[in-house]
Amino acid sequence: MSLYNACVPQLVKMLGNLDRWLDKAVEHAALKKFDADTLLVARLAPDQFTLARQVMAACDAAKYAGARLAGKEAPVHPDTQTTIPELKERIQAVAAFLGALTPAEFEGAAARVVTLSFAPGMVTSGTEYFNEMALPNFYFHATTAYAILRHNGVDIGKRDFLGSVSLRPA
Amino acid sequence: MSLYNACVPQLVKMLGNLDRWLDKAVEHAALKKFDADTLLVARLAPDQFTLARQVMAACDAAKYAGARLAGKEAPVHPDTQTTIPELKERIQAVAAFLGALTPAEFEGAAARVVTLSFAPGMVTSGTEYFNEMALPNFYFHATTAYAILRHNGVDIGKRDFLGSVSLRPA
Repeated sequence: MSLYNACVPQLVKMLGNLDRWLDKAVEHAALKKFDADTLLVARLAPDQFTLARQVMAACDAAKYAGARLAGKEAPVHPDTQTTIPELKERIQAVAAFLGALTPAEFEGAAARVVTLSFAPGMVTSGTEYFNEMALPNFYFHATTAYAILRHNGVDIGKRDFLGSVSLRPA
Repeated sequence: MSLYNACVPQLVKMLGNLDRWLDKAVEHAALKKFDADTLLVARLAPDQFTLARQVMAACDAAKYAGARLAGKEAPVHPDTQTTIPELKERIQAVAAFLGALTPAEFEGAAARVVTLSFAPGMVTSGTEYFNEMALPNFYFHATTAYAILRHNGVDIGKRDFLGSVSLRPA
C-alpha cells in the first residue's frame, strides 16, 4: 500500500466531490430563490466553524497532507473567500497542486520527519501524520461541510459523499 | 505503509474516541437534567440517520474494514441498540474484534479480492476498498455522530475527535 495512492488520488477525488456539493447548494438556492452564499455562514453549533471555514479547513488538510508527504512547500491560500465561486476556486487550486505531485516525490514519505505548526519542538512520521492527523482532519471538515449542507436542505446523499469507487466485474 | 497500521490501531483509537463522546453526552445530559438517550433519535436532516444509526454505521464500517482486509468473518451485531450503554457495548465489541486481528492476518490484504453486499457481481481490491470506501465511510459516520452531539450542545472539540496522536520530541 503506497502513501501516494492513499493520499493523492483519493483526496483529489474527495475535493472534486466537495466542489460538486457546492454546485448542488447553488442549485438548491436557485430553486428556493435565496442567495446561495448565505449558506457560507451556516454552522451546526455557535462555537463551530462556518461552512466557509469548514471548506477552507478541508482544503488545508488536503494541501498539507500532499505537501508534507512529498517534502514540498505548500502553496499559500489566505482564508479570505466569502462566495461559493471563490471557495470552488480554492478547492480546484488544491486539487491541481495535489494532482501535480508524483509518486516519485512520495518515495521515503512514510519515514519522512514531519513538523507541525501547532506542536513546536515535536515531530511525527509521514505515515503517522497521514493516518492520525491529515486524513481524519480532512474527513472531519469535509463531512461537517456536507452535514451543514444537508442540515440546510441541500439535496446530497452518501453517493455524493463517496463519489466514484473502484469496482470491477468479478 | 502497512494496511494493518492504517486500519487497526487508528480505527481502534477512533472507536475509543467515539465511546468517549457518548460519555460526554451523558455528562451533558446529567448537567442539563435530561435523559441522555433522547439524543439517540436526534438527526441533522429528516432524511438522514439518527445519532444511534450513525454510531451503528461507524461500528459496521470499522468492523467490515478489519474483517475484509484480514479475510475473516465479521461478528454479527444487529441494529437493535436503543440506549447509550448498549451502543457503547457495541463500540467496545468492535474495538475488541479489531484489536484481536494480527499483522500476519493482514498479509496480502492490499491485493485481496473484496466483495461488497451492495455491489453484487463486482469486486475491488483491499487497498481500494480501504481507501475509497471503508475509511471515508467510517469517518463520515463518526463525524456525523460528533456533529449531532455538537449541534445538541455536548461539550466536545477537535481534540476529542482526533484523540491522542503520535508526537515525539524533535
